[in-house]
Amino acid sequence: MAEFTLYIGNKCFSSWSLRPWLAMRHLEIPFEEGFVRLRTPETAANLAKVSPTGQVPVLVHQPSNHKPLNDKPLQGRIVWETLAILEYLADLYPQKKLWPDELGARALARSVATEMHSGFREVRYGWPMNLRRPKVHKPLDAEGEAQRVRIEALWRECREKYGKGGPFLFGHFTAVDAMYAPVVTRFDTYGGVLAADTRAYVDAVLATPAMRHWYAEAAKETWPEPGPDE
Amino acid sequence: MAEFTLYIGNKCFSSWSLRPWLAMRHLEIPFEEGFVRLRTPETAANLAKVSPTGQVPVLVHQPSNHKPLNDKPLQGRIVWETLAILEYLADLYPQKKLWPDELGARALARSVATEMHSGFREVRYGWPMNLRRPKVHKPLDAEGEAQRVRIEALWRECREKYGKGGPFLFGHFTAVDAMYAPVVTRFDTYGGVLAADTRAYVDAVLATPAMRHWYAEAAKETWPEPGPDE
Repeated sequence: MAEFTLYIGNKCFSSWSLRPWLAMRHLEIPFEEGFVRLRTPETAANLAKVSPTGQVPVLVHQPSNHKPLNDKPLQGRIVWETLAILEYLADLYPQKKLWPDELGARALARSVATEMHSGFREVRYGWPMNLRRPKVHKPLDAEGEAQRVRIEALWRECREKYGKGGPFLFGHFTAVDAMYAPVVTRFDTYGGVLAADTRAYVDAVLATPAMRHWYAEAAKETWPEPGPDE
Repeated sequence: MAEFTLYIGNKCFSSWSLRPWLAMRHLEIPFEEGFVRLRTPETAANLAKVSPTGQVPVLVHQPSNHKPLNDKPLQGRIVWETLAILEYLADLYPQKKLWPDELGARALARSVATEMHSGFREVRYGWPMNLRRPKVHKPLDAEGEAQRVRIEALWRECREKYGKGGPFLFGHFTAVDAMYAPVVTRFDTYGGVLAADTRAYVDAVLATPAMRHWYAEAAKETWPEPGPDE
């Protein structure tokens, strides 16, 4: 039995679920998947069973050296909030380098990842993640467009300063790539013709075996369908 | 000259500014204060000069071993987003223990701090921080009330599991106390009669010399006044 269970929602549209799932899969941290189907009449009750906030993702970690006192479920450590899950994994697996080593790079990585955690609302709402949507350009409103431009500028800044050693924002794959992965899918789905450097970054993330696996599973999901606006 | 400049807004109501300021002051990390007066016609232009997001707080760090290439302003590392600033300080000063050492405590601390970073919106809007407001109970709407109850439950959980060694959420002062400090002021200002354990925690934070200093300076600010609803 894996030490980790990551509870996630529907792969087609649960953008928050994708973030830690991608990090764990790409970095080869073994885990079991716990699935909570979103947008059904039973969803809220099912979420309440596994998540302290009623939201996914949630990581349950049962360290192998941890002896449960009884057979209650969820006896292990429960880590919620996407960014906190990534920090926890970074603590457990320093060799995976979820954050860059150099302090300046690390500070930029944390700023950029944290800005994603609480921001870019109009991009998220204007371009809701939907991996089965045909790729057709959809303009954002003015606020969303300003946020889209800022996201591109952040990606550019990270890659110009620290991304020379590989295709990702800080060269190798980090928590920042995980945080922006759902945004990458939105640029691909809704963004139309992208700037060359943005296209290259989007393609690098989409080409990872982990991302391809996620897309393949999203294609197999049957219900509920994403909303008409997605 | 201090290595750090922390740009902040008006102490009376800039709740995000309080978080890293309190951490640095309480943990005795020397810094200079950069002030951007909020809610004036010039605010946006002044913020743009110092902040990549147009928001405060922003930490500028000029490491003493760093040689600037020219005399441009803001040549040092610029760290934005409150939680990223706290993580940066935790990296620089491990001996200050901004996060608890033990991994389970650390995971809980990160989850609770991160939930604050992006959540509790209805508490924040229903009880806007205003340190000069008379202490009068103000009920929250249903959603805000549910969030208030959750905040109390989180404080209780942290203190019961890890807070035996001191008055703060994890015993000693951590980034989680910094993240919730503005909420502590709201409980004090708007919360009316608090549960005994909540009152004890609120009082412990308010009694720190750093917090008393912040309040004293907030009392001296003259303009702009907080809005009538605050």
